[in-house]
Amino acid sequence: MTHELEIIAAIRKRAHKNVGGLRLGIGDDAAVVQPGGGRDFLVCCDLSIEGVHFRRDWMSPKLIGRKALAVTLSDIAAMGGTARFALISIAMASNCSAQMIDEMFTGLVELANKSGVAIIGGDTSSSPQGLFIDAIAIGECEAGKAITRGGARPGELIFVSGSLGASGLGLKFLERGHQLQEVGSPAIENAEDALIQSAIRKHLIPEPRLRFGQALGDHHLATAMIDLSDGLSTDLHHLLEESHCGAVIQAESVPVADVVSALSLKAFQIEPLAMVLQSGEEYELLFTAHRDNQEKIVALAAELGTPVTAIGEIIREDGVKLLRDSKVEIIQPSGYEHKI
Amino acid sequence: MTHELEIIAAIRKRAHKNVGGLRLGIGDDAAVVQPGGGRDFLVCCDLSIEGVHFRRDWMSPKLIGRKALAVTLSDIAAMGGTARFALISIAMASNCSAQMIDEMFTGLVELANKSGVAIIGGDTSSSPQGLFIDAIAIGECEAGKAITRGGARPGELIFVSGSLGASGLGLKFLERGHQLQEVGSPAIENAEDALIQSAIRKHLIPEPRLRFGQALGDHHLATAMIDLSDGLSTDLHHLLEESHCGAVIQAESVPVADVVSALSLKAFQIEPLAMVLQSGEEYELLFTAHRDNQEKIVALAAELGTPVTAIGEIIREDGVKLLRDSKVEIIQPSGYEHKI
Repeated sequence: MTHELEIIAAIRKRAHKNVGGLRLGIGDDAAVVQPGGGRDFLVCCDLSIEGVHFRRDWMSPKLIGRKALAVTLSDIAAMGGTARFALISIAMASNCSAQMIDEMFTGLVELANKSGVAIIGGDTSSSPQGLFIDAIAIGECEAGKAITRGGARPGELIFVSGSLGASGLGLKFLERGHQLQEVGSPAIENAEDALIQSAIRKHLIPEPRLRFGQALGDHHLATAMIDLSDGLSTDLHHLLEESHCGAVIQAESVPVADVVSALSLKAFQIEPLAMVLQSGEEYELLFTAHRDNQEKIVALAAELGTPVTAIGEIIREDGVKLLRDSKVEIIQPSGYEHKI
Repeated sequence: MTHELEIIAAIRKRAHKNVGGLRLGIGDDAAVVQPGGGRDFLVCCDLSIEGVHFRRDWMSPKLIGRKALAVTLSDIAAMGGTARFALISIAMASNCSAQMIDEMFTGLVELANKSGVAIIGGDTSSSPQGLFIDAIAIGECEAGKAITRGGARPGELIFVSGSLGASGLGLKFLERGHQLQEVGSPAIENAEDALIQSAIRKHLIPEPRLRFGQALGDHHLATAMIDLSDGLSTDLHHLLEESHCGAVIQAESVPVADVVSALSLKAFQIEPLAMVLQSGEEYELLFTAHRDNQEKIVALAAELGTPVTAIGEIIREDGVKLLRDSKVEIIQPSGYEHKI
């Protein structure tokens, strides 16, 4: 609390002032933003809490700040929107030094700048224990064209960006005592070490799919979309529930991350597909689309360098069916919980 | 965390769906709001943290939720805006029962409904200790007409709504062990008890000046405005700093709350004016205006039933001078801290 004014002053100094649509940023009672004509605003927020969402012995303050913003920007991507503004509320315990908070904001602001996002406000407070961050994002999209979870219809294809499972596996390696290493560190001695690092990086340094999400929105290519924060099985259920339909997933089509294929069973006795279904905090995009648009989607993804895979289709009947080796399994929402 | 989905479902059920400008509320990755033509959006957030901003033995869960929203709506009022939407992030320790959280939202939703504010999103999480609330408010105003802190000019008058000092005095009575009583409770035995209750109520149940703030904005009557959250001396300094000028305050004009005149010196040996200057969390509006508009402001305030008082004027020279008994004192920003 004693640092509060200095912290606000430091953030304010770093914040962009000449941003399109921003009339007034940090320093007044509220930020003022000017909506573009024919545009809607998207608003969301995500909590990042020490001991629940992150541990300081697993990641630097810079990465804590970066991830706190990344996860909420991912929600804007999942609406097919363009991320524009962010507000950051932080509560700091007495063991959060001014330097630590400064580094946290460095990581956060770096991602904001890279993503074209202006930090326009927030709040600061002391905290009785630990560090609390609430990252609020404002995005925009064509009026009436936000891609919700509720637009999927039977017959449509289900797509996912990237490859899956590495974030959940990375968490397990962290829990076992593995540490994030600098790229090229001598501690990475062999191919297995490098794979483990790829999993840990996926968990601690997620890349929200901002350009791909926005492109899907701009080209009206997705009928429903969600980002994978709670795991494929849970998030697919969320999407289906809002769309009032079901899904069939082809097991062999699901893009399993290399590290998961190589190490999930060996290191943790967890079958790769099970890891994929339960792995939270992937921040990949799960979306549905008309079959007719498959080629356009593949071309767009290639143009942006985003891997994309069709993994199944929407059916009328509720629930998720997994087709594997000509057998059908019913998949329950397994429910990833943010517990360390 | 175990309650998370039920809590979201319960909030979603209570949230208004058919609200002008709201395309999509709770339940997707982000809320979608449609800005009106020629309007700007105002965005702000306020943390309410157990052990920092509130204590559960001082106020019911209902009042905790109510105040968490009230303080951020006050920021919209201070911009001369109309409060429209809110998002609520909450982190709950294991000692927060589902019933307690439900009651908290009851208080919050009651104030939202009364204020014409729709709850459109948020986040929930577990907390390692205590209850954390981040209340995010979105308001709107005529494009380019938000009343910032930076518009005051020499020669203008300084006004304040309501009467001051009761919130800070109420906090002192709470710290001394006094409790909030129901209106008409037999525990209120005499006039002094009633006065003490008025101070405690001002502290725990603040009324954001939404209608008056909005009216000042709609009629373009204020040149600069801030809400009193940190105390008159501190918040006046904030306004002056942004406006690059100073102020002269007439001590005898400052509206001192009755309870402060009656009990501040007697109960705490604090001179009433000193209490007024340092009393935080008043959530009254402090604003500046052209002299020519004084009559209009007084008439508008009377129409809305909001007491308003001219307490001084803006001068070119930096700093705050207090004129009392023909003597000049220099007032420093005393800095109210949110500590219990």
